[in-house]
Amino acid sequence: MKKFINHVDTLLDESLRGFARAHSELVELNQEPRFIRRREASGAGKVALISGGGAGHEPLHTGFVGQGMLDAACPGQIFTSPTPDQMMAAAQAVESGEGVLFVVKNYAGDVMNFEMAGEMLDSPVETVLVQDDISLPREHEIGRRGVAGTVIVEKIVGAAAEEGASLAELKSLGDKVTEATASIGVALTGCTVPALGGPTFDLPADKIEIGVEIHGEHGREVADFAPATEIVKTLCAAIEEELRPGKGQAVLLHVNGLGSTTLMELYLVYELACEFWQRQGIEIRRSLVVNYTTALDMAGCSLTLTLLDDELTRLWDAPVHTPALRWGC
Amino acid sequence: MKKFINHVDTLLDESLRGFARAHSELVELNQEPRFIRRREASGAGKVALISGGGAGHEPLHTGFVGQGMLDAACPGQIFTSPTPDQMMAAAQAVESGEGVLFVVKNYAGDVMNFEMAGEMLDSPVETVLVQDDISLPREHEIGRRGVAGTVIVEKIVGAAAEEGASLAELKSLGDKVTEATASIGVALTGCTVPALGGPTFDLPADKIEIGVEIHGEHGREVADFAPATEIVKTLCAAIEEELRPGKGQAVLLHVNGLGSTTLMELYLVYELACEFWQRQGIEIRRSLVVNYTTALDMAGCSLTLTLLDDELTRLWDAPVHTPALRWGC
Repeated sequence: MKKFINHVDTLLDESLRGFARAHSELVELNQEPRFIRRREASGAGKVALISGGGAGHEPLHTGFVGQGMLDAACPGQIFTSPTPDQMMAAAQAVESGEGVLFVVKNYAGDVMNFEMAGEMLDSPVETVLVQDDISLPREHEIGRRGVAGTVIVEKIVGAAAEEGASLAELKSLGDKVTEATASIGVALTGCTVPALGGPTFDLPADKIEIGVEIHGEHGREVADFAPATEIVKTLCAAIEEELRPGKGQAVLLHVNGLGSTTLMELYLVYELACEFWQRQGIEIRRSLVVNYTTALDMAGCSLTLTLLDDELTRLWDAPVHTPALRWGC
Repeated sequence: MKKFINHVDTLLDESLRGFARAHSELVELNQEPRFIRRREASGAGKVALISGGGAGHEPLHTGFVGQGMLDAACPGQIFTSPTPDQMMAAAQAVESGEGVLFVVKNYAGDVMNFEMAGEMLDSPVETVLVQDDISLPREHEIGRRGVAGTVIVEKIVGAAAEEGASLAELKSLGDKVTEATASIGVALTGCTVPALGGPTFDLPADKIEIGVEIHGEHGREVADFAPATEIVKTLCAAIEEELRPGKGQAVLLHVNGLGSTTLMELYLVYELACEFWQRQGIEIRRSLVVNYTTALDMAGCSLTLTLLDDELTRLWDAPVHTPALRWGC
């Protein structure tokens, strides 16, 4: 395994130090326990927004700490849940009296640890569980997982928090965005987990994995490699079946790269997805084509669709200033 | 080769259509001949800034078309120079009477074709030749090549153009930035060129290529794979020998990913590079850690250092609004 590392045990800390240093005007690193927080205090009257999860999906979540999104992010080791003491310490550091909202991707370890942290905190706590990955059926025993739609939730809920929405309002808004969002991914290759020294799974040269999730968990099906138009059609059709957007529905279309897929390909995928949705009479109102929720160096991408109304559009457009996303300020 | 494409012959056009659609508030695509231009006209009194080069380095150059950077970008096919008719048409579309500045990476085909376009244009034309790659000696017959420092040149010269600097002033500023900038890259793997269906070169599992350039051209040396600290030290030492920054010198440090290297690794490389420069008494005044000048899906990164003075710092900080870089507006 050739990667830029000194040792698998120090990779995360060395990387977080670099991240905090590169963006020191926006964030600071708490080393023990590990979390990244906004440098500028959130101030009274604002609910604290905290997320976290295993590392390896950068810029998620640390890249979204800042004005208009998260107050803190708790990174676990690669593909490993952060621990309750991280969330506790982060919450105590950024909470300002209005309560804490956890944004949690639906993975057993994350859910359990955020829950434990919530129980131990004195402040009021609510949790938005992101489960936008439609590759598993809704009734699957482990539930649907949280993937690239998480960024949409964090942006929209973060904007409302900045405007002073209450904890109950943010919880309800977060659930609304999650409900309006569906994602599905496709892998062309596995990814190299440093601690393993090799890929999480192997795909034959003529196969792709439809419905892959961001750690390389098995998806819907191993399918034959196909031209991009066919792959995109498969992904869009799955989302259509899930969300069933009506003619004229406004949407946010997010094409997310999983790591080593080129921007050139991501824009091609975006173009093909637009053509699909426009044939259905859907209005692509907002777009996001970028590597935001990665799976280390996996080749592949995911499509996310969020049904927009005027409220969600306005909150999406609201100013944001984080290391990975910035506009309006 | 598993990539999101329909056909190698349509990849670039489908991708450019998606790019222009995703960023339609900022740019528009001219299909024949191919170029991306700012949607909002540059207006009278502004020199037109035009760049271009082979595709495969996205977001360079198309991602930097917009307010405060380029007026137009001319993409060739992957790793292939654009043709003079593209630059001619782009210049005629965006020129507003103050002349045209070409920002050209030093590759024989690009240089020749921009030169031909310049000769055929009626407007006054100047060219800034970017040759920041220090992996070849200065006196090498093909000259030094233009790599990740190109973005720094485009940002700083773009800001001055926006402020109304003259063609002669911009040419002189561009040469100054190029002179103050040194880059060197390292590849951990080759990259997959779609038309070839495979990698441009193979590196054994225990080797890395120091001084690799953005098409996978052979660099300084094939070295043994080593811990990140050693690799970063080799790169920084090469830059130090070239620029010889004095104690207290302010710099912009840019860590650029070549394609499939994770952000986690890039921030680690950044941290190690900061430690190196701080030991030399250098002030890291500005930072940029991102995939901006890629080599398709190559694993690797490059380090770029630009010596800053107050003028360059102010122009770096000036407002910019392009698909890939945005602040202050």
